This record gives sequence, C-alpha cells and structure tokens, in this order.
Amino acid sequence: MPGNSFGHLFKISTFGESHGGAVGVVVDGVMPKVLLTEEDIQKQLDRRKPGQSSITTPRAEPDKVHILSGIFEGETTGTPLLMILYNEDARPEAYSDIKDMFRPGHADFTYLKKYGIRDHRGSGRASGRETAARVAAGAVARKIIELRGVNVTAYTIQIGSVKCSERNLTVIEQNPVRACDLKASAEMVRLIEKLRDEGNSVGGIVECRIDGVPAGLGEPVFNKLEAELAHGIMSLGAVKGFEIGSGFRCAEMSGIEHNDSMDRNGFRSNNAGGIVGGISNGETIIFRAAVKPTASIATPQHTINIGGEEVVIRTEGRHDPCICPRIVPVIEAMSCLVIEDHFKLQAALFI
Amino acid sequence: MPGNSFGHLFKISTFGESHGGAVGVVVDGVMPKVLLTEEDIQKQLDRRKPGQSSITTPRAEPDKVHILSGIFEGETTGTPLLMILYNEDARPEAYSDIKDMFRPGHADFTYLKKYGIRDHRGSGRASGRETAARVAAGAVARKIIELRGVNVTAYTIQIGSVKCSERNLTVIEQNPVRACDLKASAEMVRLIEKLRDEGNSVGGIVECRIDGVPAGLGEPVFNKLEAELAHGIMSLGAVKGFEIGSGFRCAEMSGIEHNDSMDRNGFRSNNAGGIVGGISNGETIIFRAAVKPTASIATPQHTINIGGEEVVIRTEGRHDPCICPRIVPVIEAMSCLVIEDHFKLQAALFI
Amino acid sequence: MPGNSFGHLFKISTFGESHGGAVGVVVDGVMPKVLLTEEDIQKQLDRRKPGQSSITTPRAEPDKVHILSGIFEGETTGTPLLMILYNEDARPEAYSDIKDMFRPGHADFTYLKKYGIRDHRGSGRASGRETAARVAAGAVARKIIELRGVNVTAYTIQIGSVKCSERNLTVIEQNPVRACDLKASAEMVRLIEKLRDEGNSVGGIVECRIDGVPAGLGEPVFNKLEAELAHGIMSLGAVKGFEIGSGFRCAEMSGIEHNDSMDRNGFRSNNAGGIVGGISNGETIIFRAAVKPTASIATPQHTINIGGEEVVIRTEGRHDPCICPRIVPVIEAMSCLVIEDHFKLQAALFI
Amino acid sequence: MPGNSFGHLFKISTFGESHGGAVGVVVDGVMPKVLLTEEDIQKQLDRRKPGQSSITTPRAEPDKVHILSGIFEGETTGTPLLMILYNEDARPEAYSDIKDMFRPGHADFTYLKKYGIRDHRGSGRASGRETAARVAAGAVARKIIELRGVNVTAYTIQIGSVKCSERNLTVIEQNPVRACDLKASAEMVRLIEKLRDEGNSVGGIVECRIDGVPAGLGEPVFNKLEAELAHGIMSLGAVKGFEIGSGFRCAEMSGIEHNDSMDRNGFRSNNAGGIVGGISNGETIIFRAAVKPTASIATPQHTINIGGEEVVIRTEGRHDPCICPRIVPVIEAMSCLVIEDHFKLQAALFI
Repeated sequence: MPGNSFGHLFKISTFGESHGGAVGVVVDGVMPKVLLTEEDIQKQLDRRKPGQSSITTPRAEPDKVHILSGIFEGETTGTPLLMILYNEDARPEAYSDIKDMFRPGHADFTYLKKYGIRDHRGSGRASGRETAARVAAGAVARKIIELRGVNVTAYTIQIGSVKCSERNLTVIEQNPVRACDLKASAEMVRLIEKLRDEGNSVGGIVECRIDGVPAGLGEPVFNKLEAELAHGIMSLGAVKGFEIGSGFRCAEMSGIEHNDSMDRNGFRSNNAGGIVGGISNGETIIFRAAVKPTASIATPQHTINIGGEEVVIRTEGRHDPCICPRIVPVIEAMSCLVIEDHFKLQAALFI
Repeated sequence: MPGNSFGHLFKISTFGESHGGAVGVVVDGVMPKVLLTEEDIQKQLDRRKPGQSSITTPRAEPDKVHILSGIFEGETTGTPLLMILYNEDARPEAYSDIKDMFRPGHADFTYLKKYGIRDHRGSGRASGRETAARVAAGAVARKIIELRGVNVTAYTIQIGSVKCSERNLTVIEQNPVRACDLKASAEMVRLIEKLRDEGNSVGGIVECRIDGVPAGLGEPVFNKLEAELAHGIMSLGAVKGFEIGSGFRCAEMSGIEHNDSMDRNGFRSNNAGGIVGGISNGETIIFRAAVKPTASIATPQHTINIGGEEVVIRTEGRHDPCICPRIVPVIEAMSCLVIEDHFKLQAALFI
Repeated sequence: MPGNSFGHLFKISTFGESHGGAVGVVVDGVMPKVLLTEEDIQKQLDRRKPGQSSITTPRAEPDKVHILSGIFEGETTGTPLLMILYNEDARPEAYSDIKDMFRPGHADFTYLKKYGIRDHRGSGRASGRETAARVAAGAVARKIIELRGVNVTAYTIQIGSVKCSERNLTVIEQNPVRACDLKASAEMVRLIEKLRDEGNSVGGIVECRIDGVPAGLGEPVFNKLEAELAHGIMSLGAVKGFEIGSGFRCAEMSGIEHNDSMDRNGFRSNNAGGIVGGISNGETIIFRAAVKPTASIATPQHTINIGGEEVVIRTEGRHDPCICPRIVPVIEAMSCLVIEDHFKLQAALFI
Repeated sequence: MPGNSFGHLFKISTFGESHGGAVGVVVDGVMPKVLLTEEDIQKQLDRRKPGQSSITTPRAEPDKVHILSGIFEGETTGTPLLMILYNEDARPEAYSDIKDMFRPGHADFTYLKKYGIRDHRGSGRASGRETAARVAAGAVARKIIELRGVNVTAYTIQIGSVKCSERNLTVIEQNPVRACDLKASAEMVRLIEKLRDEGNSVGGIVECRIDGVPAGLGEPVFNKLEAELAHGIMSLGAVKGFEIGSGFRCAEMSGIEHNDSMDRNGFRSNNAGGIVGGISNGETIIFRAAVKPTASIATPQHTINIGGEEVVIRTEGRHDPCICPRIVPVIEAMSCLVIEDHFKLQAALFI
C-alpha cells in the first residue's frame, strides 16, 4: 500500500508539502462522543511549531489548525476528522538556486530516483513540516488515551556528548531543548548555539515514557507493541535508531541480570521496557530514539547536481541547528497513535 | 488487524505453536514462474534449526519443510504457497510443572493477560520456534531478490563485551556464533560456554548488510524503508533495539560529519546506512539489532504463579545460551521479506 | 479497519459531512508525472453536481474543487493529493425540525444506533454529497486509465418500468436522465416529473461498460475483479443490487447457453461480462446497478422519534426525485478507482 | 494486496489447488476461549462436500479437516488456526488431454493471461474446491456469532425457471437442492437430472437470511455492511449477481412504496433488507445471489488452444450439473465471516 497512512483501527492519512497549499491529515476510527476542540490540537502544534526559541528556525508559520469534518456540536461523531494547516510563510523562491542540486543529508536524490520528479521547495513532502500533521492526529489520540488513564512524555536526554544526569519530568517544558535536567539543558543550549554559529548542527537522543498502559496491548507476532512503536518512530526522517528498555545495553548483559523477576508487588525491574513478547506488561513503557544532526547547515558542502556535475552547495533558509526540541512532541504523537490503535485492537480481540 | 501477517504485496501469514501440530506460513504475492524447490527453503531452515553446535539447544527438530500449494511442475504459479513444518520432538509434558508460573523474561504473564488463556507448552505461540516460518517465507523472498541482484548477509558483531574488530564476511558460516571475525568468535564461544555452565546466558548485537538494492525503494512517509525494516526486526521477541547507518552514534555527531556528501562517483560516506528520507539511495543498507540474553536459564529465579503467590522457578528444558547464532538467518529472512515487498511497491507506483 | 478508505495501491480516504466545513479526499498512490489540473476534476464534478436540470435538486453547491497538495508545476509528484470542496450552500437550520425523527429510508436510525450520536444536518456523513469526493478521486483515476487505453461509460437503462430499447452511447449526455435511448429518456423525464409532483420518487437501473481493459486484471480468490467492482458499487447508499454480464438472468440459462465459447477471433459471446474466475478476459466489462427511489419525498410518512413516539414526518429540503442521472458519474468514478488499482496490483505481481 | 485474504479483524488467508497437496486456511483474529472442535468444522464441510446425492459430483473427497494450531485443551487461544484438508482423490491425469485448451466458462484463459502459467489440473486454484477452505473458516465464525445470537441460513429459491413459492426453512436440509419449498425441489431435481443427462447444466438463485444481527454493524462509507457482503459473495466464481432487500425490483418502485416506515414496534417492512446507510438496522438481513450454470458440461464445445487454434472440447471429469445445492453452505460461510468481522469492528469503534 502507498505509504501515507498509519495505524490499523485508529488510522491516519496525511498529505501536504512544505511549500504547497497545506499540510494536514484525515483521522479515521475516532471514538464517537469525545469532546474535542481545535484548542486541544493547537496546544500540541504550538509545541512543535517553529520560532519557539533562539535555537529553533525563525520560519513564521502559525500552524493554525482547522477541523473541517467529524465534529458536531463539539463532539466527535465517529466519522473522519479532516485537520488542515494552510501554508502561509511559504517562500518557494528561496529554494530556486538549489533546485537542481542534491543537498547532502536530504532526500533530494532519493525522491528524484523514486518518483522521477521532485518538489524542491523546502524539501516538499520530505520536509519536517509533514510532522505537523502527525502532531495534529496524535493530539486526538492523546485526548482519548488520557481518558483511558495513559500519559505520554518525551524529553531530550542527550545532545552531542552532553547527557542528562537526572530524569526530572517537571522541567521539560521549562527549557528550550526539552531536556529532563535543567543543568544539562543549559550546557546543551550553549553547544547548539556554538555549532549553529559555526554553520553546523548536532544530534541527540530523545527518551519517551508511556505510563498507565494496562497489560495486554500488542498483537503478536508481527505487530508486537514495540514493533509498531519502532515503525512509527523510525518513520521520522531524522531518527536513526530505536531501542526499548535495556536497548543496546542488553548486548552486554546476562540473563540473570536482564530477566525482570517478579514478586507479589509486580516486576522488580524493567529491562523489558514495559513490553514482553510484544504485549504490554503493565509497567511503564520506555524507549529511546537517536536523532541525527540537522542536514541543513550553512557550511558549504560537496555534492552533485542533477546533471552529475560536482558542485559546492550552501543550504540557506531557516533551519533548526538541533532537531531534538521540536521532535519531542512528534515522538509523543506517534506514541499516542500507536497506543490508541492497540487499545482498539485489544477490544476487538475479545468482542 | 490481527498480528500474524506481515508485508503488503509480498505477504506472509504465519501460524503454529511450539508444541502443537505444526508451524508454518502462507505466502501470498509470489512472482509466478520462479523455479523453487523445498531444498531452497530447507537450506535456510537448516541454518536456523536447533542442534547445530555445542552452543545451541539439543532439541532435535529436523525442521523439514513441506510445500503443499502454489508450485506446479517446479515453478511458482502466483498462487499462495503453504509451507508447513510438522512438530516432531514436541515434549509438552516437560513444561507441566511450570504451567502455572510466569517465567521471568518470557511472555507467560503477558499472554495470559492478553488472551485470558495460554498454551504453556514451550511458550506456545511466543516460542522462538515461530521464527522457522519466517525463515521459510524469507527463503522464497531471498530466491527472488537474488534474481534481482540483491544479497542479504547478517552476522554477529558482539556478544557480551566481546566485539568483532573486522568485518570478514567469508568466515560467518565457519564459526558457531556466526561472527564476522574468527578470533573474536573463539572468545565469544568461550564466554557463551562459561555462562551456560553457570546456568546463565548472554546477549549480543547482530549486523545486517543488504547489497544491490537500487535507489528508489521505500514508501514515504510512514512506510519508509528503514521503518519497515525496524518493524520487521523489532517484531522478533529477542530484539531490544534497531539502528541504521550511524545509529545511536549520530547523537554525538555534527551535521558536517554526518551528512554524506557526494561526488561524481556517488556518496563519499554512508552514515545514512543506505536510506535517506525513507528511500534507498543505492548504497549498501546497513543496520544492527540488539539481541537480549536468552530468558530461559537454569539458575533459580524469583517469580509469582497465576495465584499471585511468590515462587522460585528453574526453567529446565533445552535452550540456547545465546540467541545470536540462530537469529542471524531470521534477521536475514525479515530483511528479504521487506526488500521484496518494496520492489513490488515501487513497481506499482509507476505502472 | 475504519471504513472511509477504498483501494489497495490506488487508495482514497474521504471525509466530510453534507453541512459541515467541507467534503473531500486524500488520494495516495497516484502515478508520478501525470499532467493533472483542477479542470480535469471539475469536469467530472460538474456532471454530478446539483442543479443541472429540472429533475435534479436546486441546491446551489458550485462543488468547486481545490487541489492543495501532490501537484508540482502541473504534474503529479507521487505524493498524496488533497482535493477539497468547501460547503457553501449549507442550510443546517432547514433540518432542525426533524432532528429528533428518523426519516424513513434514511440512515438516521442506524447512524444513531452505531455511533450514539449523529449529525442530523442533511444526513451528515450519510449524505449523497459524500460521493462528490468519490467523483473527484475517480477523475484522477480516469485520467490515468485513459492513458492506458481504458474508457468507462455508465448510463441509465431503466427508470420505473420505462426501459431503454437501445444502447446509444452518444446520447447519454444529451438527456437529463443520462439514458442511452433518447426516446425512452423523454418518457423517463415525464415519469420522474409526475412522481415528483405527487410528492414521490422513483428507482431505476444504471449500466456501466468498461472498454479497453486488457486480460489479466483481478486478484483471485477474494479480490476478484467483479468482487471489487461489486464492493465499490454496493458501497453507494442508493444501490440495492449489482450484477455482471448475464447477471440474474443466468439463473434461467443452461451451461450450453451461458458458456462463452471461443474461436480464433476471441470470445463469441460475453455472458461473463468481461471477467472469468475473477480476472478480466479482454472483453468489455459490463455490469448493472439497481438504484432505489430517493428516500426524501414530500409525502408525509409514519415514523418514530428518538423517544420512540410515533410521529408523522414530511421531509422538506431540496432533493432529486430520481437518483439515476446524478449517480451515473459516481458509478463511473468507482469503476475507474477499481480499474486503476488493479492495473497496479497486476504490475506488482510480476515485478 | 494479493487476493487470498479476506476480512479485517477476523481475517482468513486461504491456499491450495484442486489437485495439489492440500487446501486450507489460516484464521487470524479468533476470539480466545471459545470451545471449538474439528467436528464443528466437519459438520459444515460435510454439507459442501461432493457425493452427497445423485445430483452432485461423485468425486470422493472425504474433506476431512485437521486443525493444527490455535487450539489448546479444546479452546481457542487467540492465535491463528491452521485448518487443512489434504487432497486424496486427486486425479490430475484426468486433465492431461485438455491441458492446452481453454475450457469455455472456465478461468483457463484468464489465469494463463494473468500469471503466464497455470496449473491445469482440475482448474487448480480456480477450482470450486477452494471454497472448502472458506467453509472451514466460516464454521469458526459461525460458532462465535451463534454465541452472539446470530443465525445464518441460505437456501435455493430458483433453479432454471422453477421457483419456490414458499420460504419453509425447515425443509432445506431435507431435499438435495436445499430449496425452501419441497414441492418445487422435486421439480428442480427433475430439471437438473434432465439437463445433466443431456450433457448440460443449469443456473439458479440462492437466498440468504441473517437473523439476530443487532442494529449498528457496518462501516460507512466504503465498508458498508452490504458492500462487504457483496464483496464476499461476488468473490465466489459462480456468482453473477448480488442483491439485498428489494434488490433489482427497487427500479420499479416508488419512494412511498420502498421506504420502510416505522412505528413503535419497529420497521413495518424490510425493503432495505436489514441494512440502511451501510449499517444494520436490527431487522433480518436478506440477500440473493445469482448462480451461473456449471461451466463443465459433457456436450462438445468450440474453443481454442494455447496455440490459438480452433478445437472442439468435451470436458470430462466429475462435475455437478447445478452449483446451487453445494454453494448454499459456502454463501452461509461468507456471510458468517463478514458478520463476525463487523462485530469486532463495531467493538473497536467504541473502545
């Protein structure tokens, strides 16, 4: 199937290019009679939108959402929601001088190879702007899973070599990198600013915890809950790795260390990351995503053009020097989508 | 949808429990007129089957495949293949004394929570034996993608803290851990034997490279090629992490370092791991999977029974002390399935 | 899966209520580099839109389509098309006095039973207006299959007991009922006007022929080409029956009569209707759809309200006294969607 | 997607050729903890199997089902069921003299055009034998929907020009044509025998009623309940038409006649056939299927061979002169599958 839909029973279909008419999403499978307003959606979009701080792009998209279907007198009706964000600060002409070059780290080359044509304006469909639609859809899922008692929280735990030494969830929205450690966050901001000023960028790691998921969600053997989360998270262009619970550390662990033994109070540890055999076990689900450094940098780079000639490119435009702060709400959104979908799948199993 | 199918156009549906009548798979969407024999399948199953060496379980399943449909006079007909492996060395009684206990690290607890019933015999559907069906299906995909010029090779690169220091693909099938470094492999075997003798087990990391994939495969935005690979690999019960190209190392990299610049000979580096924007770029696809230590260990462990009482459990039975050697062909199989599926998706795009 | 998507590889997801903000569709899987304009779409929408003649509803929707994504410099890019029609002549207040009653023949009762809530304004999602989105999507498919040499033509063959006695395809767009027989069409118009003036409505039969489909399309055993056409056509709220080729007449036929024998020029008859064993045979595909009389009539009818009390209802509003003329382009649209989808499925089989 | 799967949440994947190793089905999405035995399945298979009476083929397949997975201690576990029927009375050599000819009314020509290869033995995958797998899967669905209070009953209402004049459901299993009118059934048998003796065959109409479906099942707008039923029924190779409720008669009806008005006891008529707007309304669901005359007849027919030469063919072998009696349980099976699937879809909507 073509790749612009996600989810089984809570299903989204997204559309839109960075500098076309709009980006947006159709959400199908929404529980009826849920109170839902544009403000519920806007609140999450505002966390993703550009221009929030000194270390994010100054592109001035208001990212104002419009819900054009699926709501009646303030409640969802069970019919599809269309949520649309019209593009306003589109400056397609800003890209005209690089329209025939393949920007390093970008999907210019691969889109042309795949489709035989590409919309070069601001990466077109490959733009990070596409994730606004995910955040909008995720906000709907979030509203519903919160009614079910689930909370999803993502946060930056590493930028470059600066790592958080604590997990203080109360400070996440208080610092521009959305780190869970205020002290580390200050150092992260300095690192980002330094690299930006050098015409460079930097990567990082975002962690996400999902609390309140009851035991039983996940569909073995192929749609294991962690496989679906991995699919959703790895479908973000900037993510190069996904790990759950012990993650890559498990390679150096023994079975005695890794197995989460139980007593009458439940599991004594959570190396599983809340999922065993593809099914949630009632513990907090914890996973991490590796976020690559922003591909768009001011430093001139070597590349080729569509004629195969070697050229030097300098990607102008308005870009974040680090993707972590703004990918945090996107990672949360993908998690909300997966969790709501699996609540429905589990309901269907027994009915 | 229920979770026992995988793939869009090259689609498999698996069935079977460890100690039931059989495990197997229906493969739908197979290209017609491909010469295919049971030997093609058996060859891959033999790489996964138990009892291959001193460090794998002595369970004596011959894992003999039978193809019961979809072949006519030695060629595929385009109709579904049924491939079935009858269970022969099933010893369900070996599990009767632990049938009411939740084995640490196993899916006993979660299956019961999800389904309200579980087949306790050898983990039932959650058994690693389920992956034999994946290997059988993957062997069909492999046959076809090899005709397309693609090669898939996985190998162990780390067990415990022992790491391979070279990537010598010629030695993989010559050592019992399927490592890409003979010297490291000897050390790995010693480590595994030591831990096994202590009633313990150990984790590791498997790397997989896919050569020969043309630029253009992958379906943005949700079915990006790396997202589909991640889904397939993370759907293996023992895998706790997936990374592609630079993977988690990207967190500490800058954009200048990470961007794969181009010259007239192509890409100068492969931090992308062969996929950009969800679409293959023609370079080798490289990913890694973190494999947890075997959950079944001889050392007594604390757990509870279905009545909620604390008990001590010692999982007898026949188990591998390290999953890496036998998961190598399974990881290859999942990769073959994803690649063949995406060749078809790309064909459909333009026709 | 939720029910607002259709198609496998050429896939549409529709949204919108009769009197909400908009109706529209996301089309995913569009072949790249196809020249496509809003005029291509508008032309088909204009055939479905209200107010075309004296026997269609005077609701004054211009049904102006806007394509907001998936097009770059006049060509499709292979990314999703969003096509949207804003609602302009919505008069939700016209429905306020019947908002608590179940209109006979309408989905009021069933929507409330299913969703626990319903948007009563003009039937909400159950409105025939929803089919505008199908026509828009179908126009995209039509553009592509015409490049492949396929033509799709539907027409009215019966209204009430008035039947066409010829199949003159050149007159279809020249008469207000879109009949294939001008003489019959005049009688049909008189019948419709008479029933309308009596506060009544009437049913009919629409036939559709698809020329130029090569042998080989269709996916046995469940997605046979006729099964997919039947699915698409029976998903139109007004359609009560579907038959292909000989259709219900086959009941009275013998095998000798029914079998389409062959000679060197091909098939000697077409009782199959162009499809055998679920696969197109290269002959013209011919099917018929039974269209029920419009449910909205001016004559007072017995019904109950949401409190279960018996009431008399008279459905005011602006309605067509016969659905056939305007369902013709919708039936064509669904056919175009199915055919384009199956071209892609067949391409994927061999690649 | 390839076409050998059916259903969304209660999903079946079938395999097998008429004269290969086996036919069968994987059923995924089965409710756990349902008591299920091979006898439950066998009972339905025995209604479809050949050799039941003088007017069915004497092919001596016992059609013995084996359930090889998904059952533990007599109960379903929620994991996939594999049900397999090994082919025993296969006589592939009986077809060798017609292997290069296209039998009229059969899928020989279209399979070769689609796949470039065909298994000519007894129609291969296109054989009616494929429906045994559907009956097996349907028997599982039937078991579950009967627990929900639903009953599905199909029966012959017409063969040739002989029509049932009553709907006596108690006599269906008492006459060899499974008609709902004993008197008509005797005449039908005579007609069938006469045509068979003439080397000919005959068509008919089967009606199906589904009682006990609560209001609310069906997934607008594309997966309307009648669209899904039509899809399932039209996926049977012998079916040329599907109609629900008033069906094709609606063409001659007016809105006043057709609308099912309501009073406090419910609907006063059932022209809808139990479904309005794609959603069940709580009334009996009634539909009819047109069944073509058996393609295999003893009378010599004109056709061509794979070289394009004109030849005369006489299809020997063991064939039913009328498909109706044995398609009755198949139509019931497809109905059971659709209904169980939609119970699950509806459950998922609200959870």
